[in-house]
Amino acid sequence: MSSWKDNLRKIEPYVPGEQPDLEDMIKLNTNENPYPPAPGVRKVLDHYDESMLRLYPDPNSSLLVQAIAKYHKVDEGQVFVGVGSDDVLAIAFMAFFNSKEPILFPDITYSFYDVWAELFKIPYRQMPLNDAFEVIPSDYYGKNGGVVLANPNAPTGIAQSLEALEDIILHNQDVVVIIDEAYVDFSKGTALRLIDKYENVLIVQTYSKSRSLAGMRIGHAMGNPELIAAMNDVRFSFNSYPMTRLSVEIGAEAIRDVSYFEETKKKIIATREWTKRELLRLGFSFGDSMTNFIFASHHRVSAEVIFEKLKEKHIFVRHFSKERISNYLRISIGTDEEMKRLIEETEAIIEEY
Amino acid sequence: MSSWKDNLRKIEPYVPGEQPDLEDMIKLNTNENPYPPAPGVRKVLDHYDESMLRLYPDPNSSLLVQAIAKYHKVDEGQVFVGVGSDDVLAIAFMAFFNSKEPILFPDITYSFYDVWAELFKIPYRQMPLNDAFEVIPSDYYGKNGGVVLANPNAPTGIAQSLEALEDIILHNQDVVVIIDEAYVDFSKGTALRLIDKYENVLIVQTYSKSRSLAGMRIGHAMGNPELIAAMNDVRFSFNSYPMTRLSVEIGAEAIRDVSYFEETKKKIIATREWTKRELLRLGFSFGDSMTNFIFASHHRVSAEVIFEKLKEKHIFVRHFSKERISNYLRISIGTDEEMKRLIEETEAIIEEY
Repeated sequence: MSSWKDNLRKIEPYVPGEQPDLEDMIKLNTNENPYPPAPGVRKVLDHYDESMLRLYPDPNSSLLVQAIAKYHKVDEGQVFVGVGSDDVLAIAFMAFFNSKEPILFPDITYSFYDVWAELFKIPYRQMPLNDAFEVIPSDYYGKNGGVVLANPNAPTGIAQSLEALEDIILHNQDVVVIIDEAYVDFSKGTALRLIDKYENVLIVQTYSKSRSLAGMRIGHAMGNPELIAAMNDVRFSFNSYPMTRLSVEIGAEAIRDVSYFEETKKKIIATREWTKRELLRLGFSFGDSMTNFIFASHHRVSAEVIFEKLKEKHIFVRHFSKERISNYLRISIGTDEEMKRLIEETEAIIEEY
Repeated sequence: MSSWKDNLRKIEPYVPGEQPDLEDMIKLNTNENPYPPAPGVRKVLDHYDESMLRLYPDPNSSLLVQAIAKYHKVDEGQVFVGVGSDDVLAIAFMAFFNSKEPILFPDITYSFYDVWAELFKIPYRQMPLNDAFEVIPSDYYGKNGGVVLANPNAPTGIAQSLEALEDIILHNQDVVVIIDEAYVDFSKGTALRLIDKYENVLIVQTYSKSRSLAGMRIGHAMGNPELIAAMNDVRFSFNSYPMTRLSVEIGAEAIRDVSYFEETKKKIIATREWTKRELLRLGFSFGDSMTNFIFASHHRVSAEVIFEKLKEKHIFVRHFSKERISNYLRISIGTDEEMKRLIEETEAIIEEY
């Protein structure tokens, strides 16, 4: 007998990092920013006329699109905004990857890519990174349905050179190449200028890390207007009003405050470099992270043991059970005080073993 | 030669009502609530600790789910929340409509249904309403992949009886039946209790109309936990954190204020009934709207003329060029003052012709 259950969509969803809510916790597991958002955000909350919330938002989020375009020195028609970069990437997958050829991305990368490919029934191949967790450009030369590269990559923290990226793009002129720059503000530079040179390149960024607004769900993509228009067609076939009125106001306010952004970014990078030195001292090894996290492995004590022991102390880092990376911890960069506590507790755990 | 353009998704998006932004306008074109949201919303904005926005939201939006469950007297496991009811419905389409048989919905109904069906490549058939814009239950008896009914229906405003709905559900036990209750708070009653009786029924509601929060993008679905779990699997395969932290806080606060909700609802219904009498006096005919809008046709002056003339006066109503309904105006219910202005201006337009 047939049943409504026969036609339920069966799918294995992405599993985000846990969101514990303990008074004394140190939360270094989802790459959030340890500093509050720009001071202007408080002003938006204080002055926003709540009676306006009865109205639908501007479907084009023009205020936010304008602020992003101004900051990045691109045209408004080159900007797409969404509910976090996850939403932006999901829509890009739907808009661009409609070929029968598989799309390509690394075996070790943001673990949402294969989830979206499964959800939208897009064929895909995962290309192994080398042992230093670097992309091998020639792996991406063959016929394919599109390319997705996180740069810097997650959860490894490794950045590819712009030359390596451009080499891959040059070999992929007839498909869309997505560069997911969620962590780019902590690295040596964006590939954004490539959108002027290559009409098939889409750059995706987020407000969740460097702009301290993970809670407001804002991400954006930049690329040639034809790519952006195709994304908007998909967007407006799914949800006419994806962004809340407050996300638009808060996002526009935050991106205007360049000096606060530069200041917190610098602090996080300084803390990251201090943490690298301390982790080295404790016997960890890791690639040269260009993000707000460090992906590290200890030469003697297993990642799982350290993960569990830290958790007992209410220090949350991230551990993936996936092959090749199961002996690594992904540690987000918190405040100096938080990282000192992390190092002290980790040192104690390691000495115990 | 192949090009990245070959694999762009080509699709005709939904076209929402225009969002003009004029100082003196009377906006009766997108069924928004003329009253501000519950007073507690101001308090949320004043007291929310903006430094929390650096953190991702709770992926389960538990605070909001709990408040909705409490208000509707259902279990938390029976509640799904999304970014407006459009997001909720889009996810329901993906989660439930994976059969090769066509899903069924009326020819005149919310015009996003066929857009989602196209987007997700779901076969569909549109069943003609009768001349009074009523659903004919026996049209839905045959083999199909699912049923979607807006009740009260949009843009007609007509509500079907619970008996008619239950008759359709009884004939469709092996597919999911979605009842889209976007406007139900202005009608005589919800079909919510049917979810206890039928495990294949999903009720969808929204905060955008009766709760004056279109700008915060909150919608929800209620149904048996297996339906909700299937929707969450799709949700978490698309975007881990769809709801902003502020949407969750504001939504939970708003739904707790039952007396404010009842009061504004009653005012809108009273204004609607007054407007019906006035429109009758001016020679309009319409079905008995159970929503916060009236779908009306004039016996002599064409809808398009009235629409354009009102627009010149900065009064915005909605006109659809679609067959069968091209001589109707959909007029949202505003404040008493706004509706008086509408009636005066409409009377002047009609006298002129």
